[in-house]
Amino acid sequence: MSSSSPSRTHSWASFDGEGSGAPSPAPMSSGGSGGSSSSLVSSDASLTPFIKDRVIDGKAVAKTIQGEIASEVSRLKDRYGRVPGLAVVIVGARKDSQTYVRMKKKACADVGIASFEKCLPDTVSQEELLKFVRDFNSDKSVHGILVQLPLPKHIDESAVLAEISIEKDVDGFHPLNIGRLCMKGREPLFIPCTPFGCMQLLERNNIKIKGANAVVVGRSNIVGLPAAMLLLKRDASVTIVHSATQDMASIVRRADIVIAAAGKTELIKKEWLKPGCVVIDVGTNGVEDKTKKTGYRLVGDVDFAGAKQVAAAVTPVPGGVGPMTIAMLLQNTLEGGKRDIEGTGSSSSSSSQPGWKKRAISLARTVAAAAVGAWLAGGRGK
Amino acid sequence: MSSSSPSRTHSWASFDGEGSGAPSPAPMSSGGSGGSSSSLVSSDASLTPFIKDRVIDGKAVAKTIQGEIASEVSRLKDRYGRVPGLAVVIVGARKDSQTYVRMKKKACADVGIASFEKCLPDTVSQEELLKFVRDFNSDKSVHGILVQLPLPKHIDESAVLAEISIEKDVDGFHPLNIGRLCMKGREPLFIPCTPFGCMQLLERNNIKIKGANAVVVGRSNIVGLPAAMLLLKRDASVTIVHSATQDMASIVRRADIVIAAAGKTELIKKEWLKPGCVVIDVGTNGVEDKTKKTGYRLVGDVDFAGAKQVAAAVTPVPGGVGPMTIAMLLQNTLEGGKRDIEGTGSSSSSSSQPGWKKRAISLARTVAAAAVGAWLAGGRGK
Repeated sequence: MSSSSPSRTHSWASFDGEGSGAPSPAPMSSGGSGGSSSSLVSSDASLTPFIKDRVIDGKAVAKTIQGEIASEVSRLKDRYGRVPGLAVVIVGARKDSQTYVRMKKKACADVGIASFEKCLPDTVSQEELLKFVRDFNSDKSVHGILVQLPLPKHIDESAVLAEISIEKDVDGFHPLNIGRLCMKGREPLFIPCTPFGCMQLLERNNIKIKGANAVVVGRSNIVGLPAAMLLLKRDASVTIVHSATQDMASIVRRADIVIAAAGKTELIKKEWLKPGCVVIDVGTNGVEDKTKKTGYRLVGDVDFAGAKQVAAAVTPVPGGVGPMTIAMLLQNTLEGGKRDIEGTGSSSSSSSQPGWKKRAISLARTVAAAAVGAWLAGGRGK
Repeated sequence: MSSSSPSRTHSWASFDGEGSGAPSPAPMSSGGSGGSSSSLVSSDASLTPFIKDRVIDGKAVAKTIQGEIASEVSRLKDRYGRVPGLAVVIVGARKDSQTYVRMKKKACADVGIASFEKCLPDTVSQEELLKFVRDFNSDKSVHGILVQLPLPKHIDESAVLAEISIEKDVDGFHPLNIGRLCMKGREPLFIPCTPFGCMQLLERNNIKIKGANAVVVGRSNIVGLPAAMLLLKRDASVTIVHSATQDMASIVRRADIVIAAAGKTELIKKEWLKPGCVVIDVGTNGVEDKTKKTGYRLVGDVDFAGAKQVAAAVTPVPGGVGPMTIAMLLQNTLEGGKRDIEGTGSSSSSSSQPGWKKRAISLARTVAAAAVGAWLAGGRGK
C-alpha cells in the first residue's frame, strides 16, 4: 500500500477480463453499450447490511461508525485519561453557520469528543483571526480545527485555511494533503470528509469497486476531485465529467458507480443510469415546497424515485451522504487524536516551527499510511 | 484562473451540446459508440504547424520551445547578468544514468542554462547525499535540482526527493506541488515535465481539448495522474484506465484524445482507436532488433503504423514525447530562474527555515498562477 518510489511501469494482467456475469437486479431498459454488467452489489444480504429495498441507509452507516468512534474514544480516555478534541472557529452571526456548528457540537458530545469553539464578530481582522487559529494549532487538547466558511469578504479565506496545521486539518483540504491523497504509494493525513463518507457507503456494503467503471459528476476540490482519486486508488476505472462535458448522459450511462456531486437539482435522470448501477448522491439542493414548514425541501443531484427503479442501490437525500460527512469528521478527529495521544506521530503542530515540512512528510509516510490503510481495510471487511 | 475558495456548485451550461460535426479524417471503421466525432484537429494547416501526414513532430515542437527558452535566457543575461541553473545529482556509475545526464548537460548548454553536477559513488551515505541536496538548495546559482533515479537500495529515495526545496523541484513531484496541480483554482510551481510536454504537443497544434473525451492509460504519479489532471483543468472529460480496468479497448475507443502511458509495448491497437482521435504516446519500450547496432529499438505503447491509419494525429516513438520532456525540464528551470532573478518570488529556498510553508504557499498562489498561466496561454495561442 505504500511503496513510495514513482514508477512508470505497471503490470497489465487482465485488463480485458470480464465481470462475474451475475444477473442485474433490474431488466436492461436502454441500449447502454460497453462495459460489463457484472453485479456490484452482492445478493447475500449479510454483505449489504445497510441496503434495504435498493436504498443505502446513510444514517445507519453513520450511526455504526459513530458507535465505533465512541468506543475508541472511551478506550483512549480509560487508558490515557485524554480524549480527542475538535475546535470550530465561526465568524459572524450567519444563522446556517450557527446551526451547523451546534450540530457538530452535539455530534462530538455523543461520541465523547471534546469540542471547542471561538465565535468572532464579523468585524474581526484577518490578523486576529489568524491568531485564534494559531492558538488552536498549539493547544494540546485540540486535534482538529474547522473554520466555518464562508468568511467575510475582507478576510483572505485561503490564508486562514493555510494557517491550520496540517496535522489538525480534519477537513483535509490542504494542498499537501490533497497531493498525498492523489499520489500512488502515498497516503494523506486526513481524507476529506464527504468523499470519505461516499467510500464508506460503498465499502461497508461490500460494493465491488475494483475494475468497476466509476463516473464522478463534478470536479470540486472538496468532493468530486478527491472522490475520483479515492475510487482510482481502489482500482476503479474513473471518469470525471463536469460543466464542459459533451453528452454527459451517455457517459453516465456506462457507469457501474455514479458519484453525483454537481450541486444541480435532479440533474441525473433515470434514463442516464445503467441498470444495476450504484448511485451515491452528494447533492443537497433546496427546492421550494409549500407543504413544508420551512418552505423548502432538500433534493439531490439525482432523480431519486427514477433511480430507485433502475439502480441496484442509491442513496437518499436527505439521509444518505449528509450524515456520513459528519461521521467522517468525527473519525478524522479521532485519527488526529490517536496520533497525538498514543504517540504514534508528532504531537507538535505549529506550522511556523523549523522542520515542519520534514515532520509532516515523515509523519504522513509512517503513520497515516498505516492508520488510514487499516481504517479502510477495516471498513472493507465489515 | 485562481479563485481559491472551494465551491460545490458549478454552472452547467451546455453539458449535452454536440461537437462541430466536421468530417473525420479517416472513414469510420469500427462501431465506436457514444461521444461526438467532432474534429479536434483543424484542417487549416497554419493551426497545426507541427503535424505532417498525421504525425506530430515532437522534435520540432521541442526545438521551437528551446529557441524561446534560449532567447529568454539571453534576455535575463543581458538585463541582470545572471542565467538560470540546473543541478543534477548522480549516485553510482550506471551507464544509462550517465548518458541521460550528459544529454541534459548538452541541452542546458544549447539554451544558455548553467549546469551543475555532483557525481557520488554508490557507497555514499544517505546523510551525505542529503547534504549535497541541501547545498544546492541554498546555492543562488541553482534554480532546478534533479536527483537521478534509481538510487542505491540503502538510500530512502522519498527522503532524498522530499529534501529538494519545492522552489527548485523542477521535476514537480513534490506532493504539495501535485496537490496544487490537481486542485481547481490553484497552480503548481512546476508542472511535471512529461505531462507538461504532452499538453504542449496538443496546445501548440491547437487541438481542441475543452469538452473532448480524453482517456489516460496508466496512472503513475509522474505521467498518468498529472496528465489526467492537466486535461481536466483544460476542461476535457477525463477517464483514467489502468491494469485493473475491464474491457480497456472499448473505453479507449470512445476517446477523442488518448494519452498512452502504460509502459507496455504496443498495448493499444488500431482497433482500439476512434477514427479522428489524437494519440500521444508516452511509452518508450525497448524491443529486441538484431538489425540495430544496439540490438534493440524503441517502440511506444501504441501500434504506431496502425494508429496512423485511424487517428487524426499521433506521436512517433522516438521523436514524439521524448524530446518534449527535456524541453519542459529546461522550461521549468527557466521559470524557476525567472522567479528568482526577476524577483517575482522568494529567492530563499532552504526547506529547513521557519516559515517555509507559508512562503511556498503564498509564492505558489501569487507567482506561479501568473507565470504558469501565462505560459500555458502563450503556448495555446501559438
